[in-house]
Amino acid sequence: MGAMKQQQSVSLHGRTYQLPERPTVVVCVDGFDPDYLVAGCQDGILPNLSRWMASGFHTIGNCTMPSVTNTNNLSIITGMPASVHGVSGNYYLDKATGKEHMVLDDSTMWGSTILEQMADAGVRVAAVTAKDKLRRIINHGLAPSKGSICFSAQNAGDCTLEEHGIEGVEKRLGQSAPSMYSGELSIFVLDAGLKLLREDRADLFYLTLSDFIQHKHAPGSTEANDFMRRLDARLGALEEAGAVVAVTGDHGMSAKSGEDGKPNVLFVEDFLNSKWPEAGARVICPIADPFVKHHGALGGLVRVHLLKSDANVDEMVEKAMRGSEAATKYEMPLEREGDLVVIAKSNAVVGAKESDHDLSQLGSHSLRSHGGLSEQAVPLIRSTPLTTGSAAADKRWRNFDVFELALNM
Amino acid sequence: MGAMKQQQSVSLHGRTYQLPERPTVVVCVDGFDPDYLVAGCQDGILPNLSRWMASGFHTIGNCTMPSVTNTNNLSIITGMPASVHGVSGNYYLDKATGKEHMVLDDSTMWGSTILEQMADAGVRVAAVTAKDKLRRIINHGLAPSKGSICFSAQNAGDCTLEEHGIEGVEKRLGQSAPSMYSGELSIFVLDAGLKLLREDRADLFYLTLSDFIQHKHAPGSTEANDFMRRLDARLGALEEAGAVVAVTGDHGMSAKSGEDGKPNVLFVEDFLNSKWPEAGARVICPIADPFVKHHGALGGLVRVHLLKSDANVDEMVEKAMRGSEAATKYEMPLEREGDLVVIAKSNAVVGAKESDHDLSQLGSHSLRSHGGLSEQAVPLIRSTPLTTGSAAADKRWRNFDVFELALNM
Repeated sequence: MGAMKQQQSVSLHGRTYQLPERPTVVVCVDGFDPDYLVAGCQDGILPNLSRWMASGFHTIGNCTMPSVTNTNNLSIITGMPASVHGVSGNYYLDKATGKEHMVLDDSTMWGSTILEQMADAGVRVAAVTAKDKLRRIINHGLAPSKGSICFSAQNAGDCTLEEHGIEGVEKRLGQSAPSMYSGELSIFVLDAGLKLLREDRADLFYLTLSDFIQHKHAPGSTEANDFMRRLDARLGALEEAGAVVAVTGDHGMSAKSGEDGKPNVLFVEDFLNSKWPEAGARVICPIADPFVKHHGALGGLVRVHLLKSDANVDEMVEKAMRGSEAATKYEMPLEREGDLVVIAKSNAVVGAKESDHDLSQLGSHSLRSHGGLSEQAVPLIRSTPLTTGSAAADKRWRNFDVFELALNM
Repeated sequence: MGAMKQQQSVSLHGRTYQLPERPTVVVCVDGFDPDYLVAGCQDGILPNLSRWMASGFHTIGNCTMPSVTNTNNLSIITGMPASVHGVSGNYYLDKATGKEHMVLDDSTMWGSTILEQMADAGVRVAAVTAKDKLRRIINHGLAPSKGSICFSAQNAGDCTLEEHGIEGVEKRLGQSAPSMYSGELSIFVLDAGLKLLREDRADLFYLTLSDFIQHKHAPGSTEANDFMRRLDARLGALEEAGAVVAVTGDHGMSAKSGEDGKPNVLFVEDFLNSKWPEAGARVICPIADPFVKHHGALGGLVRVHLLKSDANVDEMVEKAMRGSEAATKYEMPLEREGDLVVIAKSNAVVGAKESDHDLSQLGSHSLRSHGGLSEQAVPLIRSTPLTTGSAAADKRWRNFDVFELALNM
C-alpha cells in the first residue's frame, strides 16, 4: 500500500459513511414503538437510554413502508427505502409465476449493504440477529474471509468458523440459545454483541432483535418494562465497554383489539371476492411469517393482486389505493406491488381470507401488530452528542439514517 | 451601583437559575402527551420541533402529581413538586371548614416563584396564559412596577397598564380574544408572546396554553395535527425572532372511553357510600373545573375524605392508598391530602358521585382526560443544544426542570 492514503469512508446509493474510528454498535430494537421509551422513562427504569436522550442524541423518525421487519432491516443496512433495496415485506407474490414466497434469504434484494461495503473496506463487521431467517438476509456480502462475523441467537449452537466466522458461541457466552419465542432471544443477541466487543472481535456491530415481547405486551406492562430494563442495562454495558451506540427500531407497534379482546380485522380477500367475484382478488399479507405465532399474519397493510386483468379497479378502491400510487407515495418497489394496497387504521388490521389466519395462536393475548402507517414512528438515539449539529438540523429523520447517525455525526 | 457586580442568578428552593443572557421563552403546552409529538413527527408536520429534537435537546420527563394544570404550572414556575408549592389540584376540600374550593388565585400557594425572583432581580418578565384563572395564580409576585407583563388570552381585551403591565393587546395583535373553548386561545398566547418578543418588551417569557384540543382530539387526528402545526410555526417564529425556546407540558392525556364511546368511570363516592355508609366518604376531584366542559370533571385521581374519624380505612383500601402514603410517594402536600387517594388505570377515570358529573357536556366526543400516573410523561425540548452535557447526564428529568433547561444549560 506504501504511501497510499487509507480509505476513510464507503459509499452506497449516493450516501457516504465514515469508517468507524472507535467501536460502533447499531442496535435495531424490533417493534420499538416510542411508547415503550415513554413508558420506560416515566417509570424510571431506563437509566442509560434516559441519559443518552438527555446528553447524547434523541429524536423520532419514520421507518420505511410497509412497517415490517425484513423491509426495515434492509433499509437500515442500506440507508434507503424499500424502493431501492427491493424487499417489500416478509412475504410476497411472484407475479411471474403466481407463487407466494417467504423472504428467506438475500436472493430478492437489490444491490449492496453498508455492512458489505464496510467489510470490503477492511472493517471487521459483526452482525447478530435474533432469528436465523433474518441472518440469512443481512449476511449478504459478509464472509469470514473478510473478517466478518454473522450469526443468529436462534442458531447460536450451530455456528462454524467457515460459515459464521465464529464458533462455540453458547460456550463463550455461557448461555444456551434461548427459545425463538421469548424475550431472551433478544437479550442473547445483545449479550453476544457485548462479548464480541469486549474481546475486540469487531469494529462495527449490527445487533437486531425480535419483537416477541412487543407483540404480546403493551408499553408500561410489567413484562414490557422488564424487557426494556434488561435492554437498557445491555446498552449501558456496550457504552461502558467503549462503543458509540446508536439505537433505532424497525417499526412501531399498535394495539389492534377491541375491548372484548377480539382483533379489529377486515379480511380483505373474503370481502373483495364476495363483492367482486369476477376480479379474482388474491391478497398477500407482507407481515406473514409462518414462524411467528403472535400476530396471526394480521398486519396494517395488505397487497391485492387482481388475477383478472379486466377487473374494475376504480370501483374497488375506496379506503385503498392503487399499487402504483402506494409504491410512489411510500417508496415501495413497484415491481413487487399489488394492484391495490389496503392500509388499516391504527387500531385495526387487514388480512386475506379468514381461513388463512389462525387467531387461536394468539392465546389469551389481545392482538398487537404493525405493518401500516401508524407504526412508522420509532426513536433514534445515540449515546454521544452530535458533533455536526447543522447537518442534523434540517433532516427529516428515518430509521435508516441510523448508520449515518452512528458513523458520520 | 458603581463597581458592584451585577446579580447573575436567582435562587429558589435550593436551585439556582442564571439570568437570561438573551431572550428566553419557556412554553408550557397544556396536555402535551408525547404521542402528539410522535404523531406530528411521523406526519412530518413539525419542522421546527423536529429540528430542535435533532439539533437542540429532546428528552422525556415526568410531571408532578396529580397530573393536572394548576399543580404543574406551579411546579414549572417554582422548579419543585407540589409538596413544596402546596397547590395539590384545581379543586380541594378545606379540611378546617369542610368547604370545597376552586384554586382561583395564588392564595393557597406556598413561597415564591422563579418568575417573581427574576422580576425582583430586574429581569423583564412576560407571562401569558390561555385562561385568566391561571393568570391570577402565576401572577404571584409579578407587578408592572417591576417591569413585568402578565395577562391572559381570555381577557386580552381588558388589560390595563396598572394591573397587567400592558394595554390594547387585541389592537396590537390585530386579533380579538378568542373563545375560551377553542384551540385559538392557545395560538393567541403564542402570538402575543411573539409580538412582545419582537417589540423587545421582555427578557424572560412564560407562555402557557390550554388543553382544549388535546381533551377532544387524539394524537394524529386532523384537528390535533392542525393545532400542532400551528403551534410549531409559532415556536419557529419565536426562535427566528432571536429567542432560546424551551418547551414542555403540564401533563399528558389519555383516552378514557371504551369502544362504545362511553367513559370507563368509577364513581368513587357512590361506591364508598354504598359499601361503607358509616364512613361518610366525601370525594374531591382535583381536576374539577367549572369553566371546562370537555372532561366532565373526571380525571385519573381523586381524594377521599372520611368525615367519620372512626372509619375503617384499612378495610377500604384496595386499589387505593392512604393519603399519607400517596403524599410521600408522589410528592404531594400532606396538608391537603385526603384520607385515601384513588388512582385510575390509564384507560379509566375516577369521579365522585354520578350526579356530580355532567357527561352530556362531552357531546359527541369520547372522553380524553388526565390527572393520574399514566399522564405524567411529557416532552422537554430546547431549540439549542446543551452546553453542559455532563450536567444533563444523570438527571431524572421532570417537567419542572424546564427553567433550568432554558436558563442554565
